[in-house]
Amino acid sequence: MTQIDFFEKLFYPKTLAFIGANPRRIWHLAGYINRFPKDSLYIVSNYIDELKEKHEEFIKGVNIYADISEIPDEIDHTVISVSRNRLLETIKTCLEKRFYTIHVFSAGTGEFDEKGFEIESELYELFKNNKNSRLVGPNCMGLYSPRGKFSYSGGFSEQAGNFALVSQSGDLTNRIVYDLNSKGVYFSFAASVGNSISLRSSDLIDFYNRDENTDAILSYMEGFSQFRKNEFEGRIFFESLKKNKKPLLLLKGGMSELGKRAASSHTGSLASQDAIWNSIFKQTNAIPIVSLEELVDTAVLFRFCSNCEPKHNSILMITYSGGSSVLGVDSIARLNAGIDVPAIREPTHSKMKELIRVGSITNPLDLPDVRDENVRIELFKLAVSEEYISGAIRLTGGPRTMGKDPDKEVIDKFYADLMRYKEICTKLNKPFMLTVPSTSDEDFRKKLIELEIPAFSSFSRAAKAFSNLYRYKNPKYSET
Amino acid sequence: MTQIDFFEKLFYPKTLAFIGANPRRIWHLAGYINRFPKDSLYIVSNYIDELKEKHEEFIKGVNIYADISEIPDEIDHTVISVSRNRLLETIKTCLEKRFYTIHVFSAGTGEFDEKGFEIESELYELFKNNKNSRLVGPNCMGLYSPRGKFSYSGGFSEQAGNFALVSQSGDLTNRIVYDLNSKGVYFSFAASVGNSISLRSSDLIDFYNRDENTDAILSYMEGFSQFRKNEFEGRIFFESLKKNKKPLLLLKGGMSELGKRAASSHTGSLASQDAIWNSIFKQTNAIPIVSLEELVDTAVLFRFCSNCEPKHNSILMITYSGGSSVLGVDSIARLNAGIDVPAIREPTHSKMKELIRVGSITNPLDLPDVRDENVRIELFKLAVSEEYISGAIRLTGGPRTMGKDPDKEVIDKFYADLMRYKEICTKLNKPFMLTVPSTSDEDFRKKLIELEIPAFSSFSRAAKAFSNLYRYKNPKYSET
Repeated sequence: MTQIDFFEKLFYPKTLAFIGANPRRIWHLAGYINRFPKDSLYIVSNYIDELKEKHEEFIKGVNIYADISEIPDEIDHTVISVSRNRLLETIKTCLEKRFYTIHVFSAGTGEFDEKGFEIESELYELFKNNKNSRLVGPNCMGLYSPRGKFSYSGGFSEQAGNFALVSQSGDLTNRIVYDLNSKGVYFSFAASVGNSISLRSSDLIDFYNRDENTDAILSYMEGFSQFRKNEFEGRIFFESLKKNKKPLLLLKGGMSELGKRAASSHTGSLASQDAIWNSIFKQTNAIPIVSLEELVDTAVLFRFCSNCEPKHNSILMITYSGGSSVLGVDSIARLNAGIDVPAIREPTHSKMKELIRVGSITNPLDLPDVRDENVRIELFKLAVSEEYISGAIRLTGGPRTMGKDPDKEVIDKFYADLMRYKEICTKLNKPFMLTVPSTSDEDFRKKLIELEIPAFSSFSRAAKAFSNLYRYKNPKYSET
Repeated sequence: MTQIDFFEKLFYPKTLAFIGANPRRIWHLAGYINRFPKDSLYIVSNYIDELKEKHEEFIKGVNIYADISEIPDEIDHTVISVSRNRLLETIKTCLEKRFYTIHVFSAGTGEFDEKGFEIESELYELFKNNKNSRLVGPNCMGLYSPRGKFSYSGGFSEQAGNFALVSQSGDLTNRIVYDLNSKGVYFSFAASVGNSISLRSSDLIDFYNRDENTDAILSYMEGFSQFRKNEFEGRIFFESLKKNKKPLLLLKGGMSELGKRAASSHTGSLASQDAIWNSIFKQTNAIPIVSLEELVDTAVLFRFCSNCEPKHNSILMITYSGGSSVLGVDSIARLNAGIDVPAIREPTHSKMKELIRVGSITNPLDLPDVRDENVRIELFKLAVSEEYISGAIRLTGGPRTMGKDPDKEVIDKFYADLMRYKEICTKLNKPFMLTVPSTSDEDFRKKLIELEIPAFSSFSRAAKAFSNLYRYKNPKYSET
């Protein structure tokens, strides 16, 4: 079997087994039982009677057994959630039965203590050079494949998308998927890979790079497994990124000295291979991301504006308030990301001046006294069309800010006008972004997703995402 | 009349007038009509018939007149919302009728054009050395006084609190009050002061400093009015801050070069008096704040933990995930605010080790394998009691993360345990803070306000607020 065949079985299994189902952690089964064809799902549990008694409706139609030996051979994907004491014996049975891909949820392995380290070492040997099986984990949440009809979490959206995630942290996988789902970004796949003794982040990235359902890749990395020479593993990761042709948003944990200490106590992986990381950020197209918020914001911008081609790291800002202009510009300056908010030059400046009675034409564009939306849009079009401006961020509180309980006509006009702004930018291949105060309502946010307009919680968060798109589209790394 | 008498009339008026009521901007009246005693409220409008016809119920019981001459003399507080062409004539009538405090909502003045500048200059002359009246504005939203039973915005809470705000931006006043109200922080007063030709930010701060209902002061500043010599005005502001004995969170807009340009086009005020600002931040107890988010976070911490006495700029972090630990620590390091996340020292480290079977004792404290909450709390208590640790930030998703649809007993225990953490810190005079993922539910946030536990959207935002509290409690400025 080729590596790609294993990924086919991992993400689009025709048969799926769950070993170690526990009625006290029934939520753990939700993303499998509610989504996967029940007749092809095999559950093994020590608590069959309790399961059948307490969760009859839930497990109806699923094949349930007391022992792994009772289920068919050659299962495509298997989730293992047994105590570490039974882990090796269970895995050996899986291998004898030629199970193709195995996700080990069980923890208490290399990250935990000496005994765990021994278990993990033996696991590593079982999969080293193994021609029949691949393992994800141990010590990880596992896989999410909306098109493959299963998810380790019952809370992730069933809607499939075109973003793929691989993460060394299960908790961050949860937070990234939940947060992006709520912002209209959906996934082809997500993988929480934990200690990565068999399939590693680089393997997942190679697959995502070739997968036609995946347009962009997100990755959270801390370091490399302790079971291989660090430099070697780092080199493999580096080579994967060099081959990769898709936008890859790389959130690297442990960049600070304090963070390195925390990372080394987390997965036992070393976060200190600074030379490799420097090469990665200098010599690949990976987009360096420093926080969860930045990862989410940048993914949102790539979701809605990946066709845009910003030529300059410079934006037009549109506000409705002087105070917000000033603080917005200050916050963008503080990013130190080389983002410019250039003044409007002649002859456009004069053309714009002619359209307003009084006041000044500045960037941020703040025109409280221009009441006619047609004039505002004309002013916007003139400014954003300037060659040295490559994107626009507009502050808006949404229809609710247009007086209390606006009627449908007012709301419809608000959205129609918003689309006029967006279309002007789309024709120019420049991103049109919104920044929306944290107190704005949920309906407004949902409508923006429907209209495919990216929204951010502040000017600086929007600007940082824009800057990442700009850098991706204008690479400065040396392709050697 | 003394200055304090004017403030009494400004914030606790016994009579209130609104000149220029417009049925098309009826929301503008809501915070007055719905809150102030109707028989002491006087409305002057050119559209009396339309007002009475369209908003009969709303304005019932209020005194309404067609002309300002018809209302009584000596009104305590008056809001003026007339076109700038009628502004001077209206103000002159107010002065003849010995109105004590006047808020000019009307814009189109000094910030707008030459004609506006002339109007504002004349206004300035009318109030210079005026013994009978004070003016707030022009070009501003005005006043909010929950105890005085009126608000320029109908959306601000009627609940009174102990935070006072003065702001040179009306939009930011809105955002600050709304955002803090939603986080359980309430106001004694808020004032949007606009062009400040009579009462200035420094006057408000002097009053807040003496007011017994005010515990802490928030201020948004860009610069000083163009009608007085800038240095002189800056000096007055500096002296006010030197006299001030309360926590003063000073959000200064226009700190960046780009921001300065935006600020000078905003209110016509100059934001370039760097020397004065440097003196202010070096020689007063004002807490320098750089963003709206930081202002809100710091206010939340002062609201719930102002009695704490952090001796060191160092914290204990508690997480439930390695990835969140690593990114949290990275983000705190990136703040460059001198915040330490120190390792636990001996002999406490060994004492803590004895309480757990396996795993390591680190800061961030991340103990997924300790199931007994009593042990977790004991570990927490040992760590947070260390002299070199002055506060704690715990990551939690709230009760919803403890399995799907947890029952009441589980939820109650969650909150009871949370209070045990809080009480340990309270006894030590150290802040106990939470960081709560953005996807957590509204009920959880409300419950935290009820329990008076400050919550933040990330480790770094909590840590920055903590660092501001630490700096306030351990001043390094020279009191000369």
